[in-house]
Amino acid sequence: MSSMNEIEFKGYAMTDPSAWSDLKLVSFEPKTFGPEDVELAITHCGVCGSDVHVLSQSWGAARDGHTIAGHEIVGKVTRVGALVKGLRPGDRVGVGGGVSSCGECRACKEGHENYCPQIVLALNANHVDGLPSQGGFSTGIRAHERFVFPIPEKIESRHAASMMCGGLTVFHPLRVNGCGPGKKVGVIGVGGVGHYAILFAKAMGAEVYAFTRGTAKADDAKRMGADYVIDTNVEAFWKAHEFSLDIIISTVDHFGPGTSLPSILSMLYVQGRYITVGLPPIDDPLPSIHPAILARNAASIGSSFLGTKADAIAMLELAAEKNVVPWIQELPMSQVKDALEGIKSGQPRYRYVLTQDIAPVA
Amino acid sequence: MSSMNEIEFKGYAMTDPSAWSDLKLVSFEPKTFGPEDVELAITHCGVCGSDVHVLSQSWGAARDGHTIAGHEIVGKVTRVGALVKGLRPGDRVGVGGGVSSCGECRACKEGHENYCPQIVLALNANHVDGLPSQGGFSTGIRAHERFVFPIPEKIESRHAASMMCGGLTVFHPLRVNGCGPGKKVGVIGVGGVGHYAILFAKAMGAEVYAFTRGTAKADDAKRMGADYVIDTNVEAFWKAHEFSLDIIISTVDHFGPGTSLPSILSMLYVQGRYITVGLPPIDDPLPSIHPAILARNAASIGSSFLGTKADAIAMLELAAEKNVVPWIQELPMSQVKDALEGIKSGQPRYRYVLTQDIAPVA
Repeated sequence: MSSMNEIEFKGYAMTDPSAWSDLKLVSFEPKTFGPEDVELAITHCGVCGSDVHVLSQSWGAARDGHTIAGHEIVGKVTRVGALVKGLRPGDRVGVGGGVSSCGECRACKEGHENYCPQIVLALNANHVDGLPSQGGFSTGIRAHERFVFPIPEKIESRHAASMMCGGLTVFHPLRVNGCGPGKKVGVIGVGGVGHYAILFAKAMGAEVYAFTRGTAKADDAKRMGADYVIDTNVEAFWKAHEFSLDIIISTVDHFGPGTSLPSILSMLYVQGRYITVGLPPIDDPLPSIHPAILARNAASIGSSFLGTKADAIAMLELAAEKNVVPWIQELPMSQVKDALEGIKSGQPRYRYVLTQDIAPVA
Repeated sequence: MSSMNEIEFKGYAMTDPSAWSDLKLVSFEPKTFGPEDVELAITHCGVCGSDVHVLSQSWGAARDGHTIAGHEIVGKVTRVGALVKGLRPGDRVGVGGGVSSCGECRACKEGHENYCPQIVLALNANHVDGLPSQGGFSTGIRAHERFVFPIPEKIESRHAASMMCGGLTVFHPLRVNGCGPGKKVGVIGVGGVGHYAILFAKAMGAEVYAFTRGTAKADDAKRMGADYVIDTNVEAFWKAHEFSLDIIISTVDHFGPGTSLPSILSMLYVQGRYITVGLPPIDDPLPSIHPAILARNAASIGSSFLGTKADAIAMLELAAEKNVVPWIQELPMSQVKDALEGIKSGQPRYRYVLTQDIAPVA
């Protein structure tokens, strides 16, 4: 219940939906502080493709009022609720895409809080008290302890930041689907999320196959740890890999008419899993597929969402142990527009991380 | 290597694709007998929806020459190759949808022979020697021992027959996807395959939810072991089951415009699996779906094909232990047309089994 310093809650908000990347510094009211909540003063925030989707409204219309994006948050704990165990003021922690859940449903009780139907997202949602949730392009945030992840000393804050969503989004399905030694993992798309899929699949001990259009990112993918890099512009690129991969993590967030899902799925070994973590615009679904395609190798098509606290802790332990270092570009938070527009045009190599410059944290 | 009696290979064949159910008794040449092969004199053969699909050509044009369907075969071993272990002449055995595979690929070596890309199906395919494979509406068949399943004494042949495909087709994905005590399993469609899904899911210890259009089959489904029967004609029938099922086995083999796959998937709990074992006509794929639907609960969409020998043995052991008795109607093999047309019009309650009347087995 102690408070190290009072946070003045301010952040870079979209105030006019027609100028999605022209964020303005505004004050906001944080959620009511509850007995299981943790408050942190933000030092770093990664910028994720889904921030761009929300702000540029490709997933739907903007809500009324100001929207502060950002959900790859690292900071220092300033305050903990009376019932919080294991976290103290001064601790270095992270917060990702979610900030609270109901705590009562089967998913919450079984440790799948990221799938709680009542989950409150870090941005563009509403807290239980009715206030809008505002993200991490800001000075501080409050979240239920279930959504606050302690960061091992060995990992720098700037490296931990984008793990909170970009990293966890791939670590979770890799872990759930059995990634590890002896497994072959395909990663489609060497972008911000794909680069994490390569890093973590490799750190987990799998053999990694990176699929990318052209050859521009081939050397990068190898340096990240890909054992093989496959140019998907080459005709019938999948042929050499038929019936071989155990898991495919697809990070592509649009499915054009050129996407041959049956060809992608033909690379899976028996009971292989195709997991798409890229979320395309609402009018761009997965291509329709005939069950006979899935029956050939008992392949499945799935997706996933964020990750659990247990996943986040396991991910950070692995990152500390195996020295997983993401490829990031740092910018002061006031330059968030450059990061947003850079993502929109596919520039980052491979994640942007904003450093606090509104109210620097001691 | 001994031969109990010489089989005269004859069967009921489609000789004219324009008269798909008018089968004629013809002689045929069986595959060359190999050292790992087993030959059996057929006593019973179930009739499966896929026999109807092949003969009525809804999965594609008929091949040249005669086609003998039937792939739910039970009989007595008449001959075993020199390298066959564990089976002897006189043994009662079953053969399902496959009769041989390459034996060399990763799938074969790891016990996934049903997914071998070189698998030879029991009918409508070609053996390695070039001869057409002919199914079980006949006097005898030869198959690699990997595809021949010993039948426990406690199970009657007429009951074992349709387990060889109808039963195994659902037992395999139930087993692979973790069906058992504490799991909730949905079965969509109470037909020949669906009735097996209910029987086996219940025998495996799961809580079973049967989904059927209307109420005509509700009592049957309960008697098969369904704990709950849900009428899918009722508006928003899925609402009461949201976020609850671990596995859904869909046996439906067409997806009309009325099929709301997102609604079906909304009934799955976290990481739940929707497995479609119904194979619709080639122009009737799964409805297109947006990854966001799958991300809500990390649901996956998959399929499967037949089952392994290990699955078949486990299924038969379970059936013997739990006294799983399928609901069948018996007909002499000469009345195969009635069975085929009965399936085409949705008549059976719930599987047809043909008994040998060409050359009765001693």
